[in-house]
Amino acid sequence: MKRMKYIIAFALLVINTVSKAQQHPSIMLTKKNIEQVRAGINKYPLLQTSYNELKKQADKAIASPINVPTPADGGGGITHEQHKENYKQAVACGVAYQVTKDKRYAEHLKNMLLKYADVYNTWPRHPKRKQEPGGKMFWQNLNDCVWLVYTIQGYDCIYDYVNPADRKKIEENLFASVVKELTEVNGKIFNLIHNHATWSTAAVGMTGYVLGRKDWVEMALKGSDKTGKTGFLKQIDDLFSPDGYYAEGPYYLRYAIHPFILFARAIQQHQPELKIYDYRNGLLKKAVQTALQCTYTNKVFFPVNDALKDKTYESEELVYAVDIAYGEMNASDDFLDIAQQQGKVIISDAGLKVAKAIAAGKTKPFVYKPMWISDGADGKSGGLGILRNGPNKNQTLAVLKAGTQGMGHGHFDKLNILFYDNNSEVLSDYGAARFLNVETKTGGGYTKENESWAKQTVAHNTMVVDKKTQFGAEWEDAEKFHPELLYFDANQNFQVSSAKEVNAYEGVEMIRTVVLFKPEKAESPLLIDVFKVKSAKEHQYDLPFWYQGHITNTPFTIRSNNTQLNTLGTKDGYQHLWLTATGKLKGNNGQITVLNNKKFYTTTFLADSSTQVQFVLLGASDPQMNLRNEKAFILSQPKSANHTFVNIIEPHGANNPIAEFTTGFMPVVKELKLVTDSDDISVVTFSYNNKLYTVTINYNNTQQFITIK
Amino acid sequence: MKRMKYIIAFALLVINTVSKAQQHPSIMLTKKNIEQVRAGINKYPLLQTSYNELKKQADKAIASPINVPTPADGGGGITHEQHKENYKQAVACGVAYQVTKDKRYAEHLKNMLLKYADVYNTWPRHPKRKQEPGGKMFWQNLNDCVWLVYTIQGYDCIYDYVNPADRKKIEENLFASVVKELTEVNGKIFNLIHNHATWSTAAVGMTGYVLGRKDWVEMALKGSDKTGKTGFLKQIDDLFSPDGYYAEGPYYLRYAIHPFILFARAIQQHQPELKIYDYRNGLLKKAVQTALQCTYTNKVFFPVNDALKDKTYESEELVYAVDIAYGEMNASDDFLDIAQQQGKVIISDAGLKVAKAIAAGKTKPFVYKPMWISDGADGKSGGLGILRNGPNKNQTLAVLKAGTQGMGHGHFDKLNILFYDNNSEVLSDYGAARFLNVETKTGGGYTKENESWAKQTVAHNTMVVDKKTQFGAEWEDAEKFHPELLYFDANQNFQVSSAKEVNAYEGVEMIRTVVLFKPEKAESPLLIDVFKVKSAKEHQYDLPFWYQGHITNTPFTIRSNNTQLNTLGTKDGYQHLWLTATGKLKGNNGQITVLNNKKFYTTTFLADSSTQVQFVLLGASDPQMNLRNEKAFILSQPKSANHTFVNIIEPHGANNPIAEFTTGFMPVVKELKLVTDSDDISVVTFSYNNKLYTVTINYNNTQQFITIK
Repeated sequence: MKRMKYIIAFALLVINTVSKAQQHPSIMLTKKNIEQVRAGINKYPLLQTSYNELKKQADKAIASPINVPTPADGGGGITHEQHKENYKQAVACGVAYQVTKDKRYAEHLKNMLLKYADVYNTWPRHPKRKQEPGGKMFWQNLNDCVWLVYTIQGYDCIYDYVNPADRKKIEENLFASVVKELTEVNGKIFNLIHNHATWSTAAVGMTGYVLGRKDWVEMALKGSDKTGKTGFLKQIDDLFSPDGYYAEGPYYLRYAIHPFILFARAIQQHQPELKIYDYRNGLLKKAVQTALQCTYTNKVFFPVNDALKDKTYESEELVYAVDIAYGEMNASDDFLDIAQQQGKVIISDAGLKVAKAIAAGKTKPFVYKPMWISDGADGKSGGLGILRNGPNKNQTLAVLKAGTQGMGHGHFDKLNILFYDNNSEVLSDYGAARFLNVETKTGGGYTKENESWAKQTVAHNTMVVDKKTQFGAEWEDAEKFHPELLYFDANQNFQVSSAKEVNAYEGVEMIRTVVLFKPEKAESPLLIDVFKVKSAKEHQYDLPFWYQGHITNTPFTIRSNNTQLNTLGTKDGYQHLWLTATGKLKGNNGQITVLNNKKFYTTTFLADSSTQVQFVLLGASDPQMNLRNEKAFILSQPKSANHTFVNIIEPHGANNPIAEFTTGFMPVVKELKLVTDSDDISVVTFSYNNKLYTVTINYNNTQQFITIK
Repeated sequence: MKRMKYIIAFALLVINTVSKAQQHPSIMLTKKNIEQVRAGINKYPLLQTSYNELKKQADKAIASPINVPTPADGGGGITHEQHKENYKQAVACGVAYQVTKDKRYAEHLKNMLLKYADVYNTWPRHPKRKQEPGGKMFWQNLNDCVWLVYTIQGYDCIYDYVNPADRKKIEENLFASVVKELTEVNGKIFNLIHNHATWSTAAVGMTGYVLGRKDWVEMALKGSDKTGKTGFLKQIDDLFSPDGYYAEGPYYLRYAIHPFILFARAIQQHQPELKIYDYRNGLLKKAVQTALQCTYTNKVFFPVNDALKDKTYESEELVYAVDIAYGEMNASDDFLDIAQQQGKVIISDAGLKVAKAIAAGKTKPFVYKPMWISDGADGKSGGLGILRNGPNKNQTLAVLKAGTQGMGHGHFDKLNILFYDNNSEVLSDYGAARFLNVETKTGGGYTKENESWAKQTVAHNTMVVDKKTQFGAEWEDAEKFHPELLYFDANQNFQVSSAKEVNAYEGVEMIRTVVLFKPEKAESPLLIDVFKVKSAKEHQYDLPFWYQGHITNTPFTIRSNNTQLNTLGTKDGYQHLWLTATGKLKGNNGQITVLNNKKFYTTTFLADSSTQVQFVLLGASDPQMNLRNEKAFILSQPKSANHTFVNIIEPHGANNPIAEFTTGFMPVVKELKLVTDSDDISVVTFSYNNKLYTVTINYNNTQQFITIK
């Protein structure tokens, strides 16, 4: 009730106060601070190198003819890349003009915009459009929005330079037309609660501020019907959890955060009374913090859902986000560590503050924290359990994915785990099957193996029931449910995250508890993984571990398929797996040791007489050679009703091929046992360096959920 | 005749002048210079950090109990690693004692040596010995030799500290026994012309100098019979080509150079009149230079023959070699670039000079040169053709392997090529099948796939006739022959290397000509590869290209093996290959584009109606999972007598997933044709950016072997 009042009050503010400040520039750079930015470029190294880089772009732009081609190509194609190049030139020339006051930059950009104004309305819909009505300048409306988000920043910088007649031409024939394209032709996207809509509303809103078009700003903030049922504010309400987590996952959070942060900065400039930075308890700052917490020390975002695995926090979106969070939202000095690693700042009021603080030696190491990050607009739709141990230069990290499906980009991987150590992936996620911007690979978009492989359950480190994908691989069904957080704790002795999923497979209840625990004398913590499954009926339970590196030891009998390989199945991702070998255990403990980036990792697992180990290689049913040949071992229980998988993943030793030494190549964990296992309690024991450890999980005791002795 | 006289004179010198200088220390550190080294540690950053590193080791040593276990384990095992640790401690404690004069270091080392003296003679032969009589402290005599090379340096440093009674005990019960072990028990190895013998002679010779044992030095220099038919000097004569190339290849050159350089330094100290640095026209300095020229800008040695691919010039052997070459042999200032990248120097007279020169800002970028490096003791047994273009930060490199077999560690890969670009391998060599020091993998030694796969011809980027390995896979046969250098040139316009091989396959003559050539407007040079084969009979000719990266485009029809994989053959390496797909071309040009480290590489190749393209994945017939799953495409002519493969490998474009842009993803080379082809001449044409280029190779014209117009 209180919240509703706040929203109404906020809505009134929106209507009454649009665009008081009609000075230019007014978004990332401001008339007020431009002199200080200019001075800072000569004083602060990071601002200087960043500016030099941008000026190089601007100089290259003014030395080249203006090129505004008729749209023809898909992602990565020539016209696609040229229009991308143009919007980057727009920012570079705009900023270079503001810093140098050299008219050549402004003139070039003005002429480019006039050229666009000449031709934009003559273009048909994009010939390679990916949807209907689809993009105009690019194959996706999304790219058209991005074009405007950038280009309007450039125009903001040269606004005062352009004479009124040209302004009129540019604003009417180009910007108004693009806004119409976004708000009307693709109005359906504009009014979604989705990151594409954020780009669209940010583009329209920022254009509204720069051009003084109150109506556009209002539509941007409150949807094209101006009711607030959609639009930017509603996106902040609905797309994030109270912890700043984004339903589509870290990779898309990285992408989405860019227009959120940029538009927020524009709102703050033009309507500070809206207190956008404080909106929803400072949600946007939390989102930046959460985005960074969803990375590992290799700088890469957790590749859950559709994610490209080479995306790091060095990407431009995060440069904007880190600069604005630090420069405007009082983020703490450990953000400077990230900015330093990014190696650049945005030439802006915020970038000035970051570069100045770094030059003053304020940088502190980024503080990675173990944490539960809630998912869902209300924070009650599961989440991501993040367990971390060790300093940034040698951190061990485990992630339990127990959040929502993440819409169309989500993967069917409830209770998936990721494991990192020694700055490397140990247990990995395939991420998305996509070659970004490589036109010969499905036009740079997702390949069909993204559906048939990457999203399927078996592509992840979580259990597959009867070789079928969770929720019948229907994401709309998956979207209705989420796992339940049972417990999260990060104390001095250990860190633990436990979650329960009962909807992914009909009649099957799954509880996964992951613990990071460092026994006495251990150099690295162990990942203890207790995966409990209950069902009234018998099923086949497959638990894959997708590992990086090379297997160096399997002290049990293996039957290798030496002269012929067959697929492990025909659907649900299994059609993509070659079965290379199978293993059968005699005792009740199995071990598999992998050498990965000069360190050993042993998975010690519980087995019984029916347990099979299947070694698989990805790459079957791949006629276009789109898949990477990754590898896994699958622990398989062919016929069980209730079953508890218990695994301990132990980082150990070192193998240094340059200095030629090897230490600790054998695991220390021994005698893994499940001594008690009921609905209420699982008790696991193991020995480490001849000391016995007992892990007791009380599933129904939220006070003392787990003890390790 | 003149040479023989020199050798006799040298031999007389050896006998007459041994060990005049009986001061200690006298090898890497000297009594004369120790004060300057001490001062330098406080002055020169690289010497300081290197010393701190070493002192940490020494401090760790004196804080730990002495541990001299009875030998039990193979490579990577506990006793193996402990004895390695001990010899490193010996150097660390010895040097730390010399620098600090803190007696704790000397005392620790003395006690360790006394402990060894107590037990050494009680040990049986090593229980896991790899040969007979085999090692004693380690599984290989080789490791015993290395132990002595290090340990004697430590003893040299504490010699003056040890009282005569303890000295006697250490020298008689330990060092004399080890020398006996090397010169007598394993005397056969001592008298080989082989890198193992170099370690053995260096160990014995250095020990002779430190202990004042003239007879040991003489044996070391001239073989145990002191005739000069074997021994260190004869090894310098026979193991290197006049260019300083080592028959076993760059990887083993790296390894072998260590005892050569160290013992040479000891000789220079004790018998400067031998002028060992000038021996054979300054051969040892050339060998260091050649070792560095056999690396790429990724720091890795060319992985020809049995090579581990993670060995870089940062390895300790090269630190010794670079320091001594610069400090003592007047190597030029570009060696400092390598020393800086190594990030350390040896705490020694030579290391002092290197650190001082770096501190004085004398470093120049290492000068990589295109060159022909001759093989064979007389330099007439073929060699390695190295073509390079571009600055160190973005260098394109092609290597043609046309030297001798390289003895037991050689691969059957005559006329193999390697190709590098953008600091990455593009066309790669598997190297050795070995997990160094990983005891669970064949005790850390070569796995059996090293024979069945890594050495076989199909594992390399060279032609396979009738699916059989060169020389019937008999290395002793291969050792008798070598390719003939037809031509090498590196001029302003292009670089070329051409060689002929007529013995690898009976009745088959092969000429491979590789050219690095940069057409107008090209950003990177093209690798033009003309592989001509002649035979009176028809054969199957397979030309594999082992690529790194991911195929992004094959504009011809491919039939993929989606649900079952079979091996491509049953022997000669083919049993390890899964055939994943086959391609058939319609026109007479095929293209395969690979994305590797954010850059594209297209191989444009000539095809006719019989040409088959086979896509293969390594990993079949591998029951222990010892192989990496690498990939190749094989251009196959099923039935030809004479045939000329023509391929152009073109680096192009860029794909930046962080900044999200792609440029030049399509190749520019088009219309590749072989317009003339006879015994005397091959004429190849192709277009690049619509300009026609003609490459004319005159096989019998050494004056104008090749023209490109």
